[in-house]
Parts: sequence; structure tokens; C-alpha cells
Amino acid sequence: MYSIFDSPNAILFGCGVSSLIGEKLTELGCKKVLVVYDKGIKAAGIVDKLLGLIKQAGIETVEFDKVEADPPDYLVNEAGALGLAEKVDGIVGIGGGSSLDTAKGARLLLTNPPPISKYFAYRNVPHEFDGIIDYEKLKPILVVPTTAGTGSEATPGGIITDTEHHVKYPIHCLVSLAIVDPELTMGLPPGITASTGFDAFCHSVEVITSRSPNRISEILARESVTLIAKYLPVACKDGSNAEAREAMLLAASLGGIALRGPQGGAPHDIGKFIGIKYNVPHGTAVGCLIAEAMKFIAPVVPDKVRLVGECMGVDIGAEASSEEIGAAVCEAIRKLYREINMPPMRSFVTSKEEMVESAGSLFKGSSFTPRPLTAEAVAEIVANSYDHN
Amino acid sequence: MYSIFDSPNAILFGCGVSSLIGEKLTELGCKKVLVVYDKGIKAAGIVDKLLGLIKQAGIETVEFDKVEADPPDYLVNEAGALGLAEKVDGIVGIGGGSSLDTAKGARLLLTNPPPISKYFAYRNVPHEFDGIIDYEKLKPILVVPTTAGTGSEATPGGIITDTEHHVKYPIHCLVSLAIVDPELTMGLPPGITASTGFDAFCHSVEVITSRSPNRISEILARESVTLIAKYLPVACKDGSNAEAREAMLLAASLGGIALRGPQGGAPHDIGKFIGIKYNVPHGTAVGCLIAEAMKFIAPVVPDKVRLVGECMGVDIGAEASSEEIGAAVCEAIRKLYREINMPPMRSFVTSKEEMVESAGSLFKGSSFTPRPLTAEAVAEIVANSYDHN
Repeated sequence: MYSIFDSPNAILFGCGVSSLIGEKLTELGCKKVLVVYDKGIKAAGIVDKLLGLIKQAGIETVEFDKVEADPPDYLVNEAGALGLAEKVDGIVGIGGGSSLDTAKGARLLLTNPPPISKYFAYRNVPHEFDGIIDYEKLKPILVVPTTAGTGSEATPGGIITDTEHHVKYPIHCLVSLAIVDPELTMGLPPGITASTGFDAFCHSVEVITSRSPNRISEILARESVTLIAKYLPVACKDGSNAEAREAMLLAASLGGIALRGPQGGAPHDIGKFIGIKYNVPHGTAVGCLIAEAMKFIAPVVPDKVRLVGECMGVDIGAEASSEEIGAAVCEAIRKLYREINMPPMRSFVTSKEEMVESAGSLFKGSSFTPRPLTAEAVAEIVANSYDHN
Repeated sequence: MYSIFDSPNAILFGCGVSSLIGEKLTELGCKKVLVVYDKGIKAAGIVDKLLGLIKQAGIETVEFDKVEADPPDYLVNEAGALGLAEKVDGIVGIGGGSSLDTAKGARLLLTNPPPISKYFAYRNVPHEFDGIIDYEKLKPILVVPTTAGTGSEATPGGIITDTEHHVKYPIHCLVSLAIVDPELTMGLPPGITASTGFDAFCHSVEVITSRSPNRISEILARESVTLIAKYLPVACKDGSNAEAREAMLLAASLGGIALRGPQGGAPHDIGKFIGIKYNVPHGTAVGCLIAEAMKFIAPVVPDKVRLVGECMGVDIGAEASSEEIGAAVCEAIRKLYREINMPPMRSFVTSKEEMVESAGSLFKGSSFTPRPLTAEAVAEIVANSYDHN
């Protein structure tokens, strides 16, 4: 059935818009903000530039620089406690998805009792209390993405790792304003450009092929796939290509917007466990599965897989069978994966046999993939991905 | 400068989704709703079908059937008073833009003191009080568009006519859920299909050519223009063509979503006065101006006007001058206008000279058109529109 479309985060997209950060925080009524980021972004010089602009606008800042990948719950709790102790009236998140999601979690804790695990959505681990978020009291949050991938700037939620149970959970948190400036992504190294770009690619492909799609998300996701197929190789080869950087960041935000109703499919369902199990970046963990996932679902949604192929410029004959469509699109994605030097699975998976055997534990629950994601299906997708990526 | 993108209304789009109206109202917590519509929609049988579904879900209904075009303030006040007297806990708007906007206004008045004129935005008429809307207390509103034009289902506002000063004013009102079902538009007569379709066309073209555009709105507006250029003639010729009806309703909603940041341009700025002055449908009043408006702005935004042409399938040479681009797109729009039998301006404008002379009064204020809309500019656009449409 169709999903509902909306896009509640306010997004200001364009080259140079990050210069407006002070003005925009003032419009949001902020006088003292907690700025959440990781040390890599700081080293890249992006944080200092933005901090300068915020201070120029007469706004005090408190810094939290401990963000880690796959943001752990305890760092969210720590950031929230810092913001509370410093009596900030707003949050700024700068960085990739981990920084933005840590900032989103800390924002909840400014006006709702800790710990963040109280607010995990779709939890299946028994817990004494579930926290009910008082949305009306939430303080403003402004986010500034510095990678073109996660789309967290455009989604009204975040993903936090439950370090006790080794599972990732969503939290709900609208963004007051996302300042999305392609200039901030110019310095991203090729490896991060590639893996984060593949995350965005997966979002948009999973939207198009979701079993709960909607026509509006599909338009945005088609544009996103088209831009990524054309510009991701360019951005990886020539990081200073402004046109490619702009296209990639737009594509990532489009993926985030599009994802809300249709939700993620098999690559995200399985990939989040692969990422934790083998300690690889999220974009790599999901990206290594998408080619084979297309082959897997082509028999049930050939027209949607064809659409993905068309956005990528794949020439598919009008009379092609669903298997031929799946094979053609799978091959095109494998080619893109290799072209931008994404790591082969054999470089991070220690044992194919062990991975395939544990397939049943790699994903449990319902999926938005249009074909049932049984343990056998997961085993097939991961085994084929290992052999061909 | 770039505008901010967001799309706060939740939209459920698809053939047959109106069958879910009872279920969705139940999810919104409604037990007794005010159903706002006009007599034409009732006569078309759409209201009774939806009322039946609402009642089947165990929800009581109160009906307000007096909606008029260019919704007058006093009818909004009357609808709001009825809802208050009947202690409804939600509002349903069914119909074209006028029904939806009347419903939106009535919704404000369920929890905020009347009259609706207190909540007119951008008012330049002095007034004793300005009402401040208590957004947190608002009751749910569900809207069901039955025309493919206004995009009101997708915009978080409405347009109400101030009958004392003969001016249209916006009100702010999010929609809890829009149920957007192309099947409900199958019975629209060709004339209404044409004029409402041209309204949607103007929205999307004005978005692309706005002086405050954004890349996300532009993607949606490009798709909208492409769909309208292809399917509006089909929907006008063969009202029962399901593909054309679906494309047109999607295009209209896309226009509504896209419009929020970029705002309307010259055709809407001038057309809203033409509509009131000559008592013609809104879509006709704005639609008769759009061809010449493109010619007018082509010298300053040739690339954007070219983009409109490309969406319409106009063949424009790479070396074309801005004047040639403007002329080509203008001619393509004139052709579309004639093809679907939109009324020539001479059929409703009593005196070209009088209209041109009053140009200065047809629009005052700032416009989102990228070229200054002086009295001379307005005179040029309306005179050319009269001569060629």
C-alpha cells in the first residue's frame, strides 16, 4: 500500500548558505548553543569557521567533540547532560550522520529525563519505562551535514546504538533547520565520499523499490539516483569538482526526504548488522549488498528495478524478463561499486561461511523489501555479495 | 537567494485511497467532524460516498454545504460557528481550493476567537487586533481535493477573501492529512479540468522561475510541468483517462508542495486581482497571463525559462538568445492554452484600455517574479495577454 509523504524538516540548500548560520540561530531564538561534532570535522577546519560565525552573531557556544561512528547511547547521554548543565537553549550538530544523530539525541535530553534509551522507538528489548517525549518543550536544533550520504539532515529521526544490547534504534526528532552547503563537503576524502555516497544511493534505490512506496518520494528518489550515478564517480575522482559535490549533497538530502514514508529495504535491514559485526562504515555495510538485493527483488518488482536502471542510464530492452532486468541493474551497480574503489566484502568479512551461517541472526522482523526477507534470502544476498563485490 | 524547503502536510496519494477516510479520521482521534463542501461536489455524488465511509467508521458528521468560490470571510465565520456550536472535534474539507480553504479557516475558528479576518497574514489594512493562533490547540483537519489545480491539499495555508476590502489574504493552517485520490477527479468537466489545471501549471512554472527558488522545489515543479504539458490536454479531451487524471492530480499536489518556499510570481500576483475584477475562475485569471509573463522574465532568467520549455518538450537551440527562449516558451504555452479551450481574455475583459489603464492598481507590493513588477510591467503583461490569449 502507498505510504504517506511529508517532509517536516526545514532545509536551506545551496552553495554558501552556511554563512547564514548565526543569523538563522538568532531567528530560532538561540542565545547559547551546544555544538556537537567529531574531532575529524574539527581537524578539517569546518567547525572553527562555523563557531566563528555563531559567535559573531552574539551567541555563546559550548562544545561537545566526542562524537563516534554508530553513535553510542552513553555519548548521547553525556552530550545531553553537558547541554543541561550549561543551560543551553539550542543545539547545533555539525558533521556526518553520527554527529547529527548525537545532536538530535542530546536535544531530546535537554527537556526530557535521561537516559536516551527511554526514547528508542520500535524497541523489542523489555524495559522498565518507555519515555514519552514532550515535543512542545523541545529546544531548537540546527544541523549542518558535512558528508553527502546519511540524509539525516532531512529525516525527522536519528539512529543511536544501544551499547548494552548491540542494536541500533531509531529516535524521533524533527530538525528546526538544516543548513545544507555543498562547499562544506569539498574536502571529503575519496573513501568517505564513496561510502557515504553509497549510503545515499541505497536510500534512494530502496525508496523506489519499497513495498510501501509513494509517488512523491519516488520522484525525489529517481532524481537522487540519477544524480548519484552521474556524479559519485566524479566526486570520488576529483573532490574539488563543485558541480559533483553539489549534486551529491542534493542527492543525499533527497534520499533522506524520500525515505520517510517508504522506509529502507534489504540493504539497510541486513547492512546495519553487517556494519556492527565487521566494524565497517555504514555506507560500506549497506552499499556492498544493494547490487544483489536488486537481483533478489527483480522477480517481484521488475518495473521498479527497471526504473532504477533507467535512472542509472542502463539500457534495458522493452522485452527484457524480470531476471534480465535484475541482472542488468545488478551489474551496473557492481560496476559503480568497483569504479569508485569501494572495498570488496572479502576485505572485511573474515569468513564467508560463518557470515552465511549466521544469516538468520542478521535480520529478524518485517522488512520494507517487497519480497520476504527470510533467513534463506538473507543468506543468498550476503553470499552473492561476497562473491561479486 | 535560496528559499527554505519543507512540506509539513501529510499526503496520502493514490487511486482508491479515499476509501481509507474513516480509518484515517479514527487514527486522528475524531469522533464528530464538520464536513465542509460545496453543492457542486455534493451533486457529483462524491460527498455522499465519503460521508458514508465516515459514518461507517462510527464518526458523527455535521455538514456545511455553502462554500463559494474565492471563499468569502463571512462563510468561513459561519462554518467555524457551526463547528463550535456542534462541538465537533475535527474538520473535513472536500472539494476544490475554495472548499479546502474554507475548511482550513473554520478549523482555526474552532479553537481561536472569531472572526477569521483576525488571522489574515500579510495584511496591509489597519485593524484593531491581530489574532495570534494557538497552534497547539488546533483540532485535526483532513482534506480531500476533488480538482487537480489549487494544490491546497499540499500547502500549509489557505486564501480567504476579505469581502469588506475586496482583497484576498492568506491564512496559516497545516493539514493533518490530505487524502489525494485521482479517482475523485474522473468526473470533472473539461472546462474546470482546464482552468484548475492551468492554476497548477502556473504554480509550478512560477516556482521554477521564482527569484527565491530552491533545488528541491525545482525538482518537484519540473516533474509537475512535464506531467501537465503531457496530460492536461488528454484529461480535457477524455475525462475518463485514469492515467491522465492521476498525472494531473499528482502534478497539482507537486505544485502545492513546491510553492511554499519560492512563492508565486507575476501570474498569481496580477491574476488574483483579474479574477476578482472580472469574476472569472482563479485558474483562468492566472492562466491567461503565464505565457506573456514568461516572455517578460526571459531576459533576466533565460535558463529558468528554458527549463520550463524543456519540461514542455519545446525544442530550443543551444545558442538561442534570451528573447528567443522567451518567445518559444510563450508560444508553447499559448498553444496549450488554446488546445484545451481556455477562454480568450476578450471573452471576459470588458475593455482592454480600461484594464491596461488600471494596471497600477492590479498589483502593488513586492513580487517573487525575478524582474520588477512595475505598473508599466503589469500593463505590458496584461495588454499582451489580451492580444494573444
